[in-house]
Amino acid sequence: MSVQVTNAHVQKLDRQHVFHSWSVQGSLDPLVIAGGKGCRLWDYAGKEYLDFSSQLVNTNIGHQHPRVIAAIQAQAETLATVAPAHANLARGEAAKRVLSHAPAGFEKVFFTNAGADANENAIRMARAVTGRDKILSAYRSYHGSTGAAIAATGDPRRVPNEFSRGHAHFFNPFLYRSDFWAENETQECERALAHLKRVIECEGPGSIAAILLESIPGTAGVLVPPRAYLEGVRRLADQHGILLIFDEVMAGFGRTGRWFAFEHFGACPDLIVFAKGVNSGYVPAGGIIISETISRHFDERMFFGGLTYSGHPLAMAAIVATLDAMAEEGVVENADRIGNGVLASGLSRLTDKHAVIGETRGLGVFHALELVSDPETRAPLPAAEVATIKRALIDKGVLPFVVENRIHVVPPCIVSEAEVAEGLAALDAVLGEASARLG
Amino acid sequence: MSVQVTNAHVQKLDRQHVFHSWSVQGSLDPLVIAGGKGCRLWDYAGKEYLDFSSQLVNTNIGHQHPRVIAAIQAQAETLATVAPAHANLARGEAAKRVLSHAPAGFEKVFFTNAGADANENAIRMARAVTGRDKILSAYRSYHGSTGAAIAATGDPRRVPNEFSRGHAHFFNPFLYRSDFWAENETQECERALAHLKRVIECEGPGSIAAILLESIPGTAGVLVPPRAYLEGVRRLADQHGILLIFDEVMAGFGRTGRWFAFEHFGACPDLIVFAKGVNSGYVPAGGIIISETISRHFDERMFFGGLTYSGHPLAMAAIVATLDAMAEEGVVENADRIGNGVLASGLSRLTDKHAVIGETRGLGVFHALELVSDPETRAPLPAAEVATIKRALIDKGVLPFVVENRIHVVPPCIVSEAEVAEGLAALDAVLGEASARLG
Repeated sequence: MSVQVTNAHVQKLDRQHVFHSWSVQGSLDPLVIAGGKGCRLWDYAGKEYLDFSSQLVNTNIGHQHPRVIAAIQAQAETLATVAPAHANLARGEAAKRVLSHAPAGFEKVFFTNAGADANENAIRMARAVTGRDKILSAYRSYHGSTGAAIAATGDPRRVPNEFSRGHAHFFNPFLYRSDFWAENETQECERALAHLKRVIECEGPGSIAAILLESIPGTAGVLVPPRAYLEGVRRLADQHGILLIFDEVMAGFGRTGRWFAFEHFGACPDLIVFAKGVNSGYVPAGGIIISETISRHFDERMFFGGLTYSGHPLAMAAIVATLDAMAEEGVVENADRIGNGVLASGLSRLTDKHAVIGETRGLGVFHALELVSDPETRAPLPAAEVATIKRALIDKGVLPFVVENRIHVVPPCIVSEAEVAEGLAALDAVLGEASARLG
Repeated sequence: MSVQVTNAHVQKLDRQHVFHSWSVQGSLDPLVIAGGKGCRLWDYAGKEYLDFSSQLVNTNIGHQHPRVIAAIQAQAETLATVAPAHANLARGEAAKRVLSHAPAGFEKVFFTNAGADANENAIRMARAVTGRDKILSAYRSYHGSTGAAIAATGDPRRVPNEFSRGHAHFFNPFLYRSDFWAENETQECERALAHLKRVIECEGPGSIAAILLESIPGTAGVLVPPRAYLEGVRRLADQHGILLIFDEVMAGFGRTGRWFAFEHFGACPDLIVFAKGVNSGYVPAGGIIISETISRHFDERMFFGGLTYSGHPLAMAAIVATLDAMAEEGVVENADRIGNGVLASGLSRLTDKHAVIGETRGLGVFHALELVSDPETRAPLPAAEVATIKRALIDKGVLPFVVENRIHVVPPCIVSEAEVAEGLAALDAVLGEASARLG
């Protein structure tokens, strides 16, 4: 079949039949992707792209890792699907592998299909364990787009999942655009914690089940928190019997040069939410790593949540192979060495050079360039100009991850020095042109 | 590795590391499943099971269909994952195939990971299109267990997804346990529609975005509605500018002996929600088939929803192969012939024979036996007795799908006459013993 396939054919099929996420459907011009390998993707015309997006920041191990592909194919040969109620070897092995990378004190894994339903069930566990209903989370955050199915459900499983008071939001630290009039990182940290303390007091500590926080908020702009922030949040949570959930969907499994991003900060949560990097998205999967205390709570009490594909064998086989390959091939160490080495220093040089870059920040292969039209006021670069930059990068064969006025520089964790140099050269050229246009 | 694997090893791995859906974790004794083929599953000791559960009513094409397995393996070889923003051949082909089985007037498919997030996004579309927020659904229903992630999210994508008034529930028709004091199906239908009309009036028609309804409520007990009910609901919806969503997650893609269950009733919705049978759950997938009118609405307006694995290539390849195989091998016709033939008549005979069966109902390979301790009062059989029956069926090598006081008889759509006879014989023996125990 592939002999006759053209980019035009694939794009036409897409535009006729496929409805897209987060989009105005009539204005789409989707890039056609035919295949990939490592940090490269290509279309049917043979045009190649260097993947500096890791798709949606998920292909940590790169595209088409032979060991993961082989594991998926082998599991497909044995058993593609099985109900979550049964015991299955791939599922047990995957849970064991995931736990082996977590800190001491974590006991079980609940598997979901992706990050959103993993956050859903972490919230559910926190509410059940504490008997409280409110969840605090940050304004600069993304935790998934689900929010209605259990409320629409009529059967009795709805009732233990009904919460009249639901969610409150606080401002998280982000010095470059401080919500606290802070002038340095120490001040930003202290004030962000003081603000969170006030929100907890005003919302009523006894009503708050959990604080849910991306260890490093990702889509919001790779907002690496000040060193002491997460420890401070942990302390506040402990003072009030509030559970702490770290959403490591985007930041976890190697992205920052550690297995989990929170390892950079010396703070440990009660629940770790994961997806994406755990198997690089080769098969949809997410989950929650559950502390011993929370796990034991449910030994004698019903857990009121679930899903058909929890612990799906193909996803599990992909997790086992991905984590084994990452460990044996030093993929996390590579993300640390390259990401916190040539990538960070190269981006720093670009920031000094091009006026359009207001700030660069990040850890490992998890960086963001903040594009501004005026370095003084830090006014975000207008959307049309950002779109021009994105288009120019794609024309140069580099696939960026663009959010609002930012370029997130998020290649696979296996990226090489040469590939970083290639990507940086494209950014240098394109952002040089953009800076010149700004005058 | 498989040489040394034992049931005990797999169960131990599971109990140590895996957290289960909808369960008291400490009381689990999960069945070990090693592999399967067609309607059979087996463990590591060589014990075989006839799968009368289709796992969670999803393996419509049976286990390990060679064509679907080959398609997953081939797609894995080409490209396992790609971001939803791009155009990909497998995704376009899958959307086209799904649409080919829908009635005229449907235009696009939005793919999700499963049924819950498909219902989530159908609800989101209905709210966006109507500008209203309330969703009406039935008490006897299950639409998924998600309900919080977008409310926890802080970024601006939360805002268009905030709804202060949310959900209201109504009673759906179920003659055997009528909520309307009805004595026959016609009366049950008329009264259920009169009740829904009153709920709409009292909730305020102008506040209702959609009525969300399983065409045949599944987990709630395979509640085949009276012939005219769905048409009546469609009429009520139309009178008030309310959209109609049919949740076909469990009932769709062959289960009732039709591609969609609503085809039995001559009523057509605005959005069709699917999952499970679309690829038999070989790779997690769900989605929404979107009417032309609703699709066009979003041509010039933003759709505020999405997910990382929307249109995942492996899931899409499995959909294409599953639907092609089902069409070419007459799988839906088999479900009709066997399900509405020997299965239905056999269950009817068992119902006449055993006092413990209060009622049998269903269509195709989608049946439920209502177990009662007293045929007069219709009192549900106590949980302990149901557990004994479940255990006895498993001991006889038949895997049932048990919910509350019911056995759902839901084999794969490919089930043969001989397999039906085998399953019925086990039911006959076990329910005979149970009836004798009742005295």
